[in-house]
Amino acid sequence: MEKVHIAVSQAYDVLIDRDLLAQAKQLLTPHVQNKKVLVVSDRNVEAAGYVSKLVEELTSVAEQVTVEVLPTGEAQKSMANVTRLLSRLAELNFSRTDCLVALGGGVIGDLVGFVAGIYLRGVDFIQIPTTLLSAIDSSVGGKTAVDLPEGKNLAGVFHQPRLVLCDVSLFESLPSAVFEDGCSELIKYGMIMNPILLKGLLERPAALKASDADLVEIVKICVELKASVVLEDEFDQGLRQLLNYGHTLGHALEQVSGYQISHGRGVATGMLVFLKIAVRQGRLAPEAVEKFARLLHTYHLLPERYNYSTELLQAAMLKDKKRRSQTITIVLPSEFGRCELKELPIEIFMNVFEEEWLAYGQATS
Amino acid sequence: MEKVHIAVSQAYDVLIDRDLLAQAKQLLTPHVQNKKVLVVSDRNVEAAGYVSKLVEELTSVAEQVTVEVLPTGEAQKSMANVTRLLSRLAELNFSRTDCLVALGGGVIGDLVGFVAGIYLRGVDFIQIPTTLLSAIDSSVGGKTAVDLPEGKNLAGVFHQPRLVLCDVSLFESLPSAVFEDGCSELIKYGMIMNPILLKGLLERPAALKASDADLVEIVKICVELKASVVLEDEFDQGLRQLLNYGHTLGHALEQVSGYQISHGRGVATGMLVFLKIAVRQGRLAPEAVEKFARLLHTYHLLPERYNYSTELLQAAMLKDKKRRSQTITIVLPSEFGRCELKELPIEIFMNVFEEEWLAYGQATS
Repeated sequence: MEKVHIAVSQAYDVLIDRDLLAQAKQLLTPHVQNKKVLVVSDRNVEAAGYVSKLVEELTSVAEQVTVEVLPTGEAQKSMANVTRLLSRLAELNFSRTDCLVALGGGVIGDLVGFVAGIYLRGVDFIQIPTTLLSAIDSSVGGKTAVDLPEGKNLAGVFHQPRLVLCDVSLFESLPSAVFEDGCSELIKYGMIMNPILLKGLLERPAALKASDADLVEIVKICVELKASVVLEDEFDQGLRQLLNYGHTLGHALEQVSGYQISHGRGVATGMLVFLKIAVRQGRLAPEAVEKFARLLHTYHLLPERYNYSTELLQAAMLKDKKRRSQTITIVLPSEFGRCELKELPIEIFMNVFEEEWLAYGQATS
Repeated sequence: MEKVHIAVSQAYDVLIDRDLLAQAKQLLTPHVQNKKVLVVSDRNVEAAGYVSKLVEELTSVAEQVTVEVLPTGEAQKSMANVTRLLSRLAELNFSRTDCLVALGGGVIGDLVGFVAGIYLRGVDFIQIPTTLLSAIDSSVGGKTAVDLPEGKNLAGVFHQPRLVLCDVSLFESLPSAVFEDGCSELIKYGMIMNPILLKGLLERPAALKASDADLVEIVKICVELKASVVLEDEFDQGLRQLLNYGHTLGHALEQVSGYQISHGRGVATGMLVFLKIAVRQGRLAPEAVEKFARLLHTYHLLPERYNYSTELLQAAMLKDKKRRSQTITIVLPSEFGRCELKELPIEIFMNVFEEEWLAYGQATS
């Protein structure tokens, strides 16, 4: 078993291995013994049998185990669900020493982390990511959030989990499109700060699969990368914005599509468009674009074409939280495997984006 | 002008004087210049003319000033209002550098502080308390919260304001019942940690009024007392619970009455009942009870009688957030002007409370 220690203000461990859910009783005992536990999950995860497995593990150690199973999809990251879960905790008489468990992907993790962060001004929670994306992204760093009708992740808190149990075997039941979404974040880590990881992905004889022997190691590398960034910038003042590579446009695409475009695919397009902007600005050589697009295509992350207008996406990006008053901070590659933050006046960014988006539309139409 | 510096993790000042609202432009400029500002207030405060006065002060310095006026009353501290205000901020394209202003009593302050604490995971806010109660209690310490149908203050975050502008002239327009509610908290500070303040209140020839010359000084003493407690215990791990003297029962009374019983009156009854428990346990001499009741009566803080059953109040207290799994921490006077924390098994507390509540009912019926 791999263990990554995340030494933020309230430190915790990320445990990474195969078949960890089957050891949940033993691994979670310090956090749930004689406590009330609310497990929040979604219908897909329940259908895969993971909810009943976890409940079976916890029942003999916890004082009480209650389960809330939500429908799937980004729409669940809502203030309505926050309000509902808060009332559920109050009905169950949850006290400050009880514990929530998020068993699911990023939607469940972000929602449950937020609820745990505000109920009684903060109670414990444990993350058990069931997708590659949430394992390497939202499970590390303590950012929790829900969406508003006006945009994604607009309300949230910083709240660290007590433990992350990352059982990569769970990813084997994922639909391939969902696993590929996680690969988009893998590629992002490579592109922003790890040329070796990026090279490894490029030179791999076949696309990464959930059953591949080196998945535990790859997840560990990404968790360590994210942890290193988070440690330097726990409250998202600067460096951490590197992790938003591709996200400014990615979030906008997710939102204008009513979340029909997945996070990984939105981010993939965002990364490619922003790479093209960087090339156009002379930051790195043009060959990078084709090489990078090829990698994204391997994981089916680029769509045939988009039908969203420049104006619609510009408006959505302006509503995104990364915006500062009169400027926008964007993440641009400086070499193949390195990115840097660049603050631009909003108007200039919008012009550059428009040119690139129109070119992108022509290339893919 | 008095200034109390609150040196919590994100330090800020509390400015205390008469006629500060008229200087809001100058005093708030560092925090609102070229920023979007959302002023949230309530109808009573608007009717007193304070909202238009503040907007007039801010319009020439801020980039944009928007106002939200809510109905009055505890029912406004709801998740529905949180959701609505979050969407309002998103519609206004508020960014991380913009600023909210809470112009009102504890309800507005707690609600706006919470919204500011979660919008984009935290934006600035300024408190301008319009009641004595909020000036000396909720404006200091960074505790924000809203109520759930199941109980008071069950959802919230720790989020410190950037500045508190405490203009005691604003209290002159308060209905006397609302000013007296603030006096309940004054008395609480005296009883938990300042025998001199308590003695001063007891020996005062007439009840304190909003126009009294020494009000600025008295408010300053209370803000300093609260700040000293908050500084030792910013995240409410122990000492800060002293401030909850009278609140376990006070919150329960507020809640079972559908918030018809005010905070100050609920807390006053809570303080008296818990003083009686302390006397019954031999912690201090019985004379304290009559002396303390007389002081509370001076400010009309004790009702003729209550019609709530022991069982109803016990259930409400159990839902209160101060409850730990199998024990409850209560605040009991140890002398006239000193309190201490006492952790009791829930069952024992419930028995003691039942005896005292029945006796209290007989005494007041």
